[in-house]
Amino acid sequence: MEELKQRIRKDGQVLEGNILKLDAFMNHQVDPRLMRKLGEEFARRFAPLKPNKILTAEISGIAPALETGQALEIPVVFARKARLVTMPKKVFERHVPSPTRGAETLLVVSPEFLGPGDRVIVLDDFLASGQTLNALANMVVEAKASLLAFGVVIEKTFESGRAALEEWSVPLESLAVIEKMTPKQIVFK
Amino acid sequence: MEELKQRIRKDGQVLEGNILKLDAFMNHQVDPRLMRKLGEEFARRFAPLKPNKILTAEISGIAPALETGQALEIPVVFARKARLVTMPKKVFERHVPSPTRGAETLLVVSPEFLGPGDRVIVLDDFLASGQTLNALANMVVEAKASLLAFGVVIEKTFESGRAALEEWSVPLESLAVIEKMTPKQIVFK
Repeated sequence: MEELKQRIRKDGQVLEGNILKLDAFMNHQVDPRLMRKLGEEFARRFAPLKPNKILTAEISGIAPALETGQALEIPVVFARKARLVTMPKKVFERHVPSPTRGAETLLVVSPEFLGPGDRVIVLDDFLASGQTLNALANMVVEAKASLLAFGVVIEKTFESGRAALEEWSVPLESLAVIEKMTPKQIVFK
Repeated sequence: MEELKQRIRKDGQVLEGNILKLDAFMNHQVDPRLMRKLGEEFARRFAPLKPNKILTAEISGIAPALETGQALEIPVVFARKARLVTMPKKVFERHVPSPTRGAETLLVVSPEFLGPGDRVIVLDDFLASGQTLNALANMVVEAKASLLAFGVVIEKTFESGRAALEEWSVPLESLAVIEKMTPKQIVFK
């Protein structure tokens, strides 16, 4: 998606530890106009699969997932990072390592909102190691729902996430694919 | 907002500790169509103030804030609940008590995205004690930006949040106002 790449070139910053800082339009400040376009692009790619639900993880997955839900007119579920007092006793949960937080993150989804018959797109902001998407996909299967595809705004090919998700044998759509990045340069595929 | 009230009556559940569970359409699963309508209603009320930015807090503030930003065509900043490795050394931060989590929450905003000249609407999902909105408003002032108004999807009058925000002398818009709730009944103003 050309507009996204241009925006990453303009506003993205590569920090130590292979962290791509996109706080200006996605991870701290959100540009609604760009998010709508991302959502419409995901919707165009996923509509033929006839999904009825988007599953993402709080926090930074919410904005692109919501705009994709808008465009497809289907609900969005965001996995919570804590078991809430509002949740039933039995929930789906997975632990995933979080490099930006330096600790394990818990992902929790209530079976009230994910179950048999659901046709699910799993979506997130970044694909790096693939562990968050993998955990979400595992919960889809545990819920006896159908996993249709993965969608990520940005894929970093050098962190092998695509290979980690191959066993699911479903499409993986990335709106921008980064092959290499240094503080001076971002190279897209 | 009549449609919101109807949805709260239909899908809301009152739990112990005066917690209103709205996980079916706002706090865990999000209904994009309803969120768009909430955003349009906020936009209708706030457009005359000519804001250029919405400030909210992750997590559940993001969806209504983003749809308000869509309708007003202005960016949305969500305060992070942790100081991220991507942030500069000097940030705005406040501690607020979190009843649903049973611990203090940190709210952090980078001065990259909030500063002099900004005309800010502070928005959140719930108004209960008002401490989150108060903390966000304090950061707006610390950033030397202008605080124009508060917006909340749901106000619980019995937790005195409106009084706690009165000192700011700016409008407070609520899309649904709950005067009383029990597990059997929700009474709107």
